[in-house]
This record gives sequence, structure tokens and C-alpha cells, in this order.
Amino acid sequence: MAEHKILINGVWRVADAERYIQANNPTTGEAIAVDYPVSSWNDCDAALSAATGAWQQLQTLEREVIARFLEAYAERIEHNAPALVEMAHLETGLPTSPRLSDVELPRTTGQLRQAAQAARQASWTMPTIDTQNNIRSMLQGIGPVAVFGPNNFPFAFGSASGGDFAAAIAAGNPVIAKANSSHPGTTRLFAELAQQAAEQVGMPKATVQLIYATSRETGYKLVSDHRLGATGFTGSRNAGLALKKAADEAGRAIFLELSSVNPVLVLNGAAQNHGQTIIDEFTMSCTASAGQLCTKPGLLIVPTGQAGDSLVAAIADKFDCAPAGTLLGRYSAEQIAETAAKLQSIGAQRLTPQSELSRGRFCHPTTLLSVTGEQFIAQPQICQSEMFGNASLVIRSESIEQTAAIISQLEGNLTGTIYSDQSGLDDADYSVLERLLREKVGRLINDKMPTGVAVSSAMNHGGPFPSTGNAGVTAVGFPAASKRFGALKCFDNVREHRLPDVLRDKNPGEIWRLVDGQWTMADL
Amino acid sequence: MAEHKILINGVWRVADAERYIQANNPTTGEAIAVDYPVSSWNDCDAALSAATGAWQQLQTLEREVIARFLEAYAERIEHNAPALVEMAHLETGLPTSPRLSDVELPRTTGQLRQAAQAARQASWTMPTIDTQNNIRSMLQGIGPVAVFGPNNFPFAFGSASGGDFAAAIAAGNPVIAKANSSHPGTTRLFAELAQQAAEQVGMPKATVQLIYATSRETGYKLVSDHRLGATGFTGSRNAGLALKKAADEAGRAIFLELSSVNPVLVLNGAAQNHGQTIIDEFTMSCTASAGQLCTKPGLLIVPTGQAGDSLVAAIADKFDCAPAGTLLGRYSAEQIAETAAKLQSIGAQRLTPQSELSRGRFCHPTTLLSVTGEQFIAQPQICQSEMFGNASLVIRSESIEQTAAIISQLEGNLTGTIYSDQSGLDDADYSVLERLLREKVGRLINDKMPTGVAVSSAMNHGGPFPSTGNAGVTAVGFPAASKRFGALKCFDNVREHRLPDVLRDKNPGEIWRLVDGQWTMADL
Repeated sequence: MAEHKILINGVWRVADAERYIQANNPTTGEAIAVDYPVSSWNDCDAALSAATGAWQQLQTLEREVIARFLEAYAERIEHNAPALVEMAHLETGLPTSPRLSDVELPRTTGQLRQAAQAARQASWTMPTIDTQNNIRSMLQGIGPVAVFGPNNFPFAFGSASGGDFAAAIAAGNPVIAKANSSHPGTTRLFAELAQQAAEQVGMPKATVQLIYATSRETGYKLVSDHRLGATGFTGSRNAGLALKKAADEAGRAIFLELSSVNPVLVLNGAAQNHGQTIIDEFTMSCTASAGQLCTKPGLLIVPTGQAGDSLVAAIADKFDCAPAGTLLGRYSAEQIAETAAKLQSIGAQRLTPQSELSRGRFCHPTTLLSVTGEQFIAQPQICQSEMFGNASLVIRSESIEQTAAIISQLEGNLTGTIYSDQSGLDDADYSVLERLLREKVGRLINDKMPTGVAVSSAMNHGGPFPSTGNAGVTAVGFPAASKRFGALKCFDNVREHRLPDVLRDKNPGEIWRLVDGQWTMADL
Repeated sequence: MAEHKILINGVWRVADAERYIQANNPTTGEAIAVDYPVSSWNDCDAALSAATGAWQQLQTLEREVIARFLEAYAERIEHNAPALVEMAHLETGLPTSPRLSDVELPRTTGQLRQAAQAARQASWTMPTIDTQNNIRSMLQGIGPVAVFGPNNFPFAFGSASGGDFAAAIAAGNPVIAKANSSHPGTTRLFAELAQQAAEQVGMPKATVQLIYATSRETGYKLVSDHRLGATGFTGSRNAGLALKKAADEAGRAIFLELSSVNPVLVLNGAAQNHGQTIIDEFTMSCTASAGQLCTKPGLLIVPTGQAGDSLVAAIADKFDCAPAGTLLGRYSAEQIAETAAKLQSIGAQRLTPQSELSRGRFCHPTTLLSVTGEQFIAQPQICQSEMFGNASLVIRSESIEQTAAIISQLEGNLTGTIYSDQSGLDDADYSVLERLLREKVGRLINDKMPTGVAVSSAMNHGGPFPSTGNAGVTAVGFPAASKRFGALKCFDNVREHRLPDVLRDKNPGEIWRLVDGQWTMADL
């Protein structure tokens, strides 16, 4: 049986393995007969040492080389798209087309190119100059970044290809990628391409390193190591909070994207006048990618009364007819079923038929449950348990006051959505509820579902705890996502020739700088 | 005996006190016979509830009202300067002039006015607009902020008057001020003036609240409460890390400024050619305010050899002649003496005579110790113990390589300073050492001591852990300091009339906005 090597300091080498893992093929339920090593601390230690050296080299490298690396890497991904798509489909069961080939892959390369632009234009560095005091500051790389990617986006959030990876590299940091154990082969292919691109443009050898897995304890040791600048994590709340605890105690930065139920509010006028749109969009949003999206709407708040009744009934029908998509993990269906049972135990009604759990292919029938506003308020924690897949919970609210009470019980979420009447009927309710909802979310949306996360300079893919670990930053969008991986460095009375070029009197390119409180590209 | 009331929701009321504390007069060593309550959780709970209400009101308040509040408060501070200075002198022993009247008070009011400008111009909000996707984002207030001020700046870092206070208010957050127990009376006077200013301009009642002290456990509960947006803490490492642990576990934001020894490197050419400047500036920097400044140079790295010998000998002479300033705390002198003894136990030489610890006035003879580079490298942790006062440690380095090894053992610091020859003799050494030093500090300084911390837009009063808890942000300087107390809020497809005015098509003032990657004040 093949055993795959890890990438340390530019060399693929045999891991110091504690044991081995295999990925699954979700479309058959069978293990894929390829062993990936679970690395011991020795592997992490070697990666950290090499990354420290790479970081020192990266700090004196021209921005242009980093930009070219990201672009060369994007090109290699495009040239190798079929192999990447095939491997990702094998390991995740995600449809090759349009999902992997036509959506996620272009998103990933687009993201790398946006990161390249951020690196080239130094837009993430926020150069700030006070001419009177001769004090100048900017963000610079924070140090080696460990990236833990999630299972649901093998490309766009992949440890060696996704948003955190691109953001960290653009900010001049080497990355230690920890593959998600559901798609180690995909991550390996990316790391190979990244390494080739790094060699092509002359990046330091340890710019990108790859390990596949570690024990929990080794993971905690990695994120708390003094050589590490920061960690970027996307995944489950339990795993993320355990890593956060370790990193926090050691004073190491960690940026987490955790779970979110992404409440969607349907106001009265919208239920009456835009029901069909909501029915279609909500169903699509819960079933595309089998609902395994961080911004899937897991809570739908619908008014009681006839319009709401019809809307919910129609959604239940559509859910019932929707083919059950393939789930990523062996236990995904079980987890959905357990949460659904827990909800039923507190009185939730099941609006779609209960079926046997599948054998073979990983899947679960598309499921809709419903609670009353009162039930939600009585058990807000259980009602906010994330069902990561094609399942969602409706809350029937009796009044704006009850909706306000429901919102006040919400945990922090990535998104919150309000559908309201297009002609303004709901505007008074909107203004009451929006203020409450906005406190609880990172992105407030009108009249569309939250599952599209544009890679936009203005995006916030973040939100209050526990949806993330830091409400002030975003994991998606450039240049902002790179700022997370920067340390603020101030140069006070430093002689001009010793300054980073971005802070010298002459603007070294078309770089936006905040000079005496005014944004400008001019020289001093 | 007078018992002082706490300020909750706009009303001065009797605390639910667990016990009482008294401040000391450091110039006599005697307690000041005024009781200040140690608040129970009930007081904190009441403050949190009131702050939550105030925060909701603040979110709909015009920016201009917040700006006017900060300005009205600055004016009231100026009108009441004599009383503030007198009380602060009584409680801290800091000289009334120039220190309190002519330096710290104008700094404080200047800072409040800079915060007012940041609020008025929304410069801290970083409005970002993507016209193509109609996604718009900005920072908005994070929620009630608890401010724990340090003992050494009763005005400029005071819980109800200083940098964290001003930054939090400018970002639209109410403040729960926890007075430093060394100057409760001073903080009370500030809170009175702040409350008057709040009433004058129509700020919510609980914009500024004041408690004097809590038990440790109650403090931990406060910083981890779900109603709190964030905490700003400046003070000792032990107290700060304990609060950080509590806040981190609850997922609440906390910004800490902890200890720092602020290494100063003297390169060979500087030792030879600029010795007198260094002697004068270093002595001044270690003795002003009795060395009780967060950026006091606690480590001076001087080359071995004759020029270095003369320099160190001259500093020792000056230290010996320097009058011992008054220290803030009853145990300050003891702590310096203990650390000095610990340093001597590992071989440090004492370069200034050892005297008896004083009785009465809080003070300690100005003290200089010295270790070899080798001794430092063998015991880096002990050699980096902060002596918070008029004492410092010289390290004699034999070579650039040894200096590099010393730097590599440094913990994170607020500042790092390099004195180098003015005609360029040291440039090669500089470029080797600067890169290493920069990694370890938030502010890199040339040719002057680190103790001046200008309130500048480009300042970084921050640095890598453990000097602070977050290397990406600064506690001093506007608008940056306010960003810490902001949550990123994104508006995706939100109808224009529902957007915050800062994000609407028409720029509502002269507000800098990042529109499609370009900074502009223009309308869309």
C-alpha cells in the first residue's frame, strides 16, 4: 500500500508517523486504500524550524516575488484542474461539475490572484506616516502560519490552497498546512503544485509545508509553539475551541471560523408577497452541496398565520422531493439525525418524513423541523445546534416582539438575513429587528440567502463569538483577510534609508498610504 | 470616614461592598483615610445591564454627539485641572509640575480631542465598498468595554480618562471603568467630569460608569460576561494574564498592555562617537517618573571594550547622583530590590552602591546592574525580569554575533532602540541586528530613548506577546486605537436607505472610504 510523504523544507520525506489514516469515498462509503501518516511532534518541530528560516528570508524578499508565486501557483492549478477535481471528487463526493470544476476551482485561483494583488500593492500593510513626528508604521508578516482547513471546501478553503493560505502568504508568511483528514490526497496535490511554483519563482524552500494529521496533543503543541506567528482554523466548534485554548494560553494568535446557524428572518410582507422566491432560494441554499456550507441557513424564522403556513408547507414539500446530496463524512448523517432527534425531544415537529439512515453512500434525507417561538426561547441552545448538512429548523414566531426575543437568544453567527416586502410594508419591523440581529452577526443580508460568499474587498466572512474567535476580522476578501496575519511595526525616528520601501518618502509604487490622516499615493 | 459611591447608570450610589480599600500617599508612605468600596458581583452586574442599554442607544446616536462629548469632557478636565493634579499628586506622588500639569494633563485632553476627530470623521470605521457586488462593510462598536488602567498614568491611561477610554468611546461603546486601586480618588474626579459632560451633550446615562475595585474572581467574571464587548487592560503581567485567561475562555475580546523591558542597543560607532548623548538620554529616561514607564529602557546592550566601559561607568556615576524619585506603590522598592538581588545571584554586578530600603516615602536608590552577554544568554528569563522603577540592567556584548544571540533570546517588547554612528559606521551591523530586533518589538527606534510615546496616527504602542496580547494593534494613536473596539459589520445587498450613513452612496461628510480598492471621499 502506498504511503505518502510529507513536505518539509522543500523536500518530500517519510513522516515520523505515529499511525496512519485513510480517507473515505463518500459516494460508496468505502475507505480509500492509501495511507497518510499521522505525524509525531518531530515532524511539526522540523516544519517549525524550517518555517522560521523561510520567514526570515521572506522578510527581505521583494513583494513582486510573492505576487508572482501566487500567480504562478494559480496557473499551475488551472493546468492541473482535471487531476485536482478528480481527486477531490473521490475524497469528498462533491460533484465535479459545476461545483468543483466551475465554481470552487475558479474561486480558488481568483482568490490567489487577489492575494497576489494585495501583496504587490501592499494594500494589506496599511502604511501610516506622521510626517511631523517622523513616525511611520505598517503591518508586516507575523511569522509562520499553521493552516487547518475544513472538510467542505477542498480547494477554496484548503490548507495549502484556500483563503487562509493565500492571506498568510500574501502577508509574507510561510504556511504549515495541516490537511483536513477527509481529503489528504487533494491537499497533497495542491502542496505539490505550490512547491513547484515556489521553486519556479525563487521563494524560500519552506514557504509551503504539508503534514496530513497529528494527534490532538501534537496539534495543541503546534499552535502554541513560540516559533509560530499565528494559526488559521476553519472547522468544527469543538476542535477549534480546543486549539484556541492551547494557543491563547501561550499567547499565540489564532483566527477561527467555527459553526454558525445563519438565521434567516422572513417578515410578514415578504411571507405574503415573496413567498415563492423564499421557498425556492431557501431550498436551494439548504440542499446545494448537501447543505454543508458554513453559511447554510440553519434557522428560518417565519411568522405564524396563513402566509407563513403556506410557505413552510411548500418548503417541506420541496425538501421532501429534493434528492439527498452526498455528505462528506461517515458520521455526518448520524450527527444530523442525532440533532434532529434532540430537537424532537424538546417538541420540534418533523415536517419531512423520517427515513432509515443510509448504508453505503454517506447521505441523509433532506430534513425540515419546526419549533414554536416559545419552544425556541425555552431551549435556545438545543435549537441552535448546528446540523451540518441538508437539514434546517423553522421557528414560527407569533409577533415582532417574539422575533425580537428569539434574536436576543441567538449566539454569534457569520450571517443574518432579512427578507422583507419590496414595496416597504415591512420597513418599520425591519428597523426594529435589524438592529438586534446586526449585533449577533458579521454579515447582514437583504433578500437573498447567505450561502454565496463573494471574494470581495468588502466581504466579512466572520462574526461574533462563537462563530469566530475575533469579531473584528474577516477570513474572506482582500486585502482585509491578510491583515489578520500581520504584526503592527512602527518605525520611530528611523533614518530614511533604513525604512521598508513602503514607508520611505518616495512611494515605491501605486501604494495607498495614510499620510497625516489623508490617504494618498503621492510621495512625501 | 467618607465612603465613596460608585457610578452606575448615571447615578452615584452606595456600592454593594465586600470590603474597603484605601490609597496611599507615596510621598509619606501613609494611607489616605478615605474608603473606597470593593464591589461585589452585584455592582458589576448592574453596570453591565446599564451598559447594554447605553450601547443600544449609542448605536443610533449621531457621530457628532460622541465627538462633542469627548470635547466637552476635555474642556471640563482643563477647567478642573488644579483639583485633578492635586488629587493625583496626593495619590501617586508624581510631581505636579511639569509632569502632571504640563505633560500628562495636556496629553490626556489632546488624546480625547483626537478621539473626537476619529469619531466625527469615522476614520476608525474603515468603510469599504464593493460597488460591483453591492457589498459594504465597516467597523461598528463592539459593545460595552471594561477599562482597567495602570498605576503610572493616572490621567493619560486612566480608566475613565485615558487612551483605552477615549478609544472605546470614540468607537461608540460605553465604558465600565475599573479604577486603579492606587488612585481611586483621581479616577472618581474624572468620572464626575465625564458624567457631567455626558449629561451636557445628551449621551446615554450609562456611557461612563465607575467601580473602584473588585475581588479577583469578580474581575474574571466581569471580563468574561457575555454582555461585555471587550476589555482594555494596562498593568502587570500577572494580573493581565489572569484576566486574559478568563476572557479567552469565554471568547470575549481583551486587549492587554503588559510588561516590557525595552532593550536599547548601542552599536560600536555610537559608543565611540555619541557616548555623552547616550549617557544623558539613558539616565533621563530611567529616572524621569522614577523610571515607572511602560517604555523605560530596562536593558542596555553595550559593546565590551574601552568606549563601552567609559559609557557604562559614566551612566553608573549619573545614576548614583540622581535623586531617587518617588515610587507609586508600597511594594515597588521591594520588588526592584528583589529583582536586583535575583540578578546578583546569577552573577550580575551592581554598578551603583547598595543602600538600605527607605522607610516613609516610597523610593529606591537609582540602580544599575551589569551582566555579560554570556550571563544573559545563560539566564535570559531572569535577566528580563522587569524592574518597574529607576533601575536598569546593562548587558556587555562581545560581538555582533553575541548581540544577535542576545536578541534572539528576547521576549516580545513594546519597543527596541538602536543607537548607531551618525556617519554610517554602524550601518552593516545595524542591518543584521535590526531585522532580528524588529521581530521582537512593536516599535523600532533610532537614536533616541523609547520613553516618549507620541499620540500619533502612526504610533504603535503595542508589540508581540507577552508585551501585549495581540501584535496587530496599538493602544495609542488615533484612529488605530479605536479599531480594537470595533466589530466588522458587512451589509450585503442591503437596500440603500437602510445602510449606515457612512456606507450610503452619498458620502455623508469628508469621510475616507475604500471604494473598489481606491481610497476616496467622493460619492459613489
